[in-house]
Amino acid sequence: MTLGTCLENVRATTPLVHNITNYVTVNDVANIILACGGSPIMSDEPRDVEDITSICGGLNINIGTLNERSIQAMYLAGAKANELGHKVLLDPVGAGASRLRTETALGLMEKMHFDVIRGNVSEIKTLAGSAAATRGVDASAADAVTDENLDAMVRLVKELSARTGAVIAITGAIDLVSDAQRCYVIRNGRAQMGAITGTGCQLSGMMTAFLVANPDRPLEATAAAVCAMGLAGEIGLEALQPGEGNATYRNRIIDAIYRMDGVALDRGAKYAVR
Amino acid sequence: MTLGTCLENVRATTPLVHNITNYVTVNDVANIILACGGSPIMSDEPRDVEDITSICGGLNINIGTLNERSIQAMYLAGAKANELGHKVLLDPVGAGASRLRTETALGLMEKMHFDVIRGNVSEIKTLAGSAAATRGVDASAADAVTDENLDAMVRLVKELSARTGAVIAITGAIDLVSDAQRCYVIRNGRAQMGAITGTGCQLSGMMTAFLVANPDRPLEATAAAVCAMGLAGEIGLEALQPGEGNATYRNRIIDAIYRMDGVALDRGAKYAVR
Amino acid sequence: MTLGTCLENVRATTPLVHNITNYVTVNDVANIILACGGSPIMSDEPRDVEDITSICGGLNINIGTLNERSIQAMYLAGAKANELGHKVLLDPVGAGASRLRTETALGLMEKMHFDVIRGNVSEIKTLAGSAAATRGVDASAADAVTDENLDAMVRLVKELSARTGAVIAITGAIDLVSDAQRCYVIRNGRAQMGAITGTGCQLSGMMTAFLVANPDRPLEATAAAVCAMGLAGEIGLEALQPGEGNATYRNRIIDAIYRMDGVALDRGAKYAVR
Repeated sequence: MTLGTCLENVRATTPLVHNITNYVTVNDVANIILACGGSPIMSDEPRDVEDITSICGGLNINIGTLNERSIQAMYLAGAKANELGHKVLLDPVGAGASRLRTETALGLMEKMHFDVIRGNVSEIKTLAGSAAATRGVDASAADAVTDENLDAMVRLVKELSARTGAVIAITGAIDLVSDAQRCYVIRNGRAQMGAITGTGCQLSGMMTAFLVANPDRPLEATAAAVCAMGLAGEIGLEALQPGEGNATYRNRIIDAIYRMDGVALDRGAKYAVR
Repeated sequence: MTLGTCLENVRATTPLVHNITNYVTVNDVANIILACGGSPIMSDEPRDVEDITSICGGLNINIGTLNERSIQAMYLAGAKANELGHKVLLDPVGAGASRLRTETALGLMEKMHFDVIRGNVSEIKTLAGSAAATRGVDASAADAVTDENLDAMVRLVKELSARTGAVIAITGAIDLVSDAQRCYVIRNGRAQMGAITGTGCQLSGMMTAFLVANPDRPLEATAAAVCAMGLAGEIGLEALQPGEGNATYRNRIIDAIYRMDGVALDRGAKYAVR
Repeated sequence: MTLGTCLENVRATTPLVHNITNYVTVNDVANIILACGGSPIMSDEPRDVEDITSICGGLNINIGTLNERSIQAMYLAGAKANELGHKVLLDPVGAGASRLRTETALGLMEKMHFDVIRGNVSEIKTLAGSAAATRGVDASAADAVTDENLDAMVRLVKELSARTGAVIAITGAIDLVSDAQRCYVIRNGRAQMGAITGTGCQLSGMMTAFLVANPDRPLEATAAAVCAMGLAGEIGLEALQPGEGNATYRNRIIDAIYRMDGVALDRGAKYAVR
């Protein structure tokens, strides 16, 4: 199955995605899920989440702007989603930046099965128990995946995947998407995407839709979502007019996902498998 | 009074609207209320809402991303708004999709008077006690208002209006806006609006401003807001450039409301009254 | 040091800003902080905020959509930020519009030191104990700073600054930025900015980044942020195409900040010092 087919499967099946996510980027998360062909629902009240997650196919747990109530909702929704065999994704926003965020991410990983864990390199290193140098919700430059440390980083994600049973996705200048055996090394995207809040959150939401629509191919579905996001970043930047900046760029990226089809994704995806 | 006059009355009076609404679409709700000439305030803390609603002319209650605290705030604010004779609107987002949402919508309807209840067809059928096939926060295709079931649906909204004392607005491909006697059947809008999160929420916010500015004409005010939103969807789609998608379309719809005047609304509104 | 240098210092140092802010405008706040060269983090959970604020350089407290939990977080984060000598800004959204908002703003001012307090004229008059005529979250026209009452208003902000030890910023058609000795009277901006939700919130977030990057020059840093926002409003309006309205204008303002450099800011800033 090609990566483009993964996208086409989203459009063909309109997967419902339950999101427990931060209030900073939630609107863009909803719009990018719609743009790729999915249907988003947001709910973070403990009394509401089990019903909501039950009618969906996937659950996207993002711990940015977590609070006592939403943490409780994450545990309840995750347990229910696991019970129903739904796809579940963890976006550990800010793991390493505060005790509560690190503990919540690790606690969730202990109590439930995740199909995918997606974060920046500092967040993923924190979860892997390796020394990370988090800078707030952004990855530290010291942690970046580079051609120099690529071998070591591929080993790290394969080991973390083997240990957790989840596909691991690290996104940054070079993206890694790995299960225990194979690692996609992806080189789509533009540095300017870092000047938009929430491209990572958006990717996690869209990725959950890809997982639901491609239930037997989690590695390919995850890689497809990463390539689609990076390619949209390239198309959106190309479309930027003089005087336009990060706010318009944000819209153009979502627009590019809306316009993208499987053929364009297959043609634009830049990756090697190791 | 024409529908265009209803819009002009909003611009002439700058009605203040208190919104207890979800955090997914709240920014767009605020911007569209400003676009049509109103002034939005958001507050969902029980200790804050009675003061805030007192200084406003209308209250927009939207149960998307409801939680224990905001539900309590809805009851307090609604009681105060009723006491003061303010306009109150209910947007039952996801009624039918979870027990908490259905119970909250019905509970609010029992405890307070709503001037308007606006939702998609599955949500409204849930409130009417008729069998609905909700698909998350979107209407089920099986429930859609069509030319084939139009007579039955007009009967349903008239009966629900008679029973609740509220103007009932169902929005979708065909929109119905009805009191117990008359029903506007509205055919503005574009199918692509469904690919934007929150066009319904935006409409409810804007509609509350229309109600406040046209206190004696709730049916016309509601119909005017529905036509304005649909017409903005038509204008916004027409303005879309190659490569643009749902994110930019969202902005163009709000922009179209900002630019719309009463003459344009009267010229563009497409409806019949039954 | 010129105002343009204040902006360049933001870009050179990428200050981390912790925001406890409302969910209406939070996405725009994050994107404008990124646009000016800073890095935003949002957290409002009491168990999280001390860790988060500790890794940042500044704290932006905005009381729009405050609730019991976030109020507690404001007190905890403010105390920690003061202890660490971080910059702290207060945006008293809606002070004067409800008891809870007024009491929270005054309570915070009593318990912690603010480097800057930024609001509209009605909010600042409320904090100064002078009769204000708040109209929701917007300033009352009766309160507006004009050429006629300019002397009295400059006296008011200087006195409030002397009393609180904070730089006071009133924004509106004429902006005032003052410490106890000197007051910048700024005439950048466009009236149409009032049709966008959250330009004030955005300014407060960006201003906090300016404060962190210019630690010894709070007055100049604050004035620079105000001029930058107003200038961006001028550039963004100029760039508006036929048919575009407040939603696109919002993006164009953030875009203009993204594109602005120190030379452009110095050339475009319109102010006198009194």
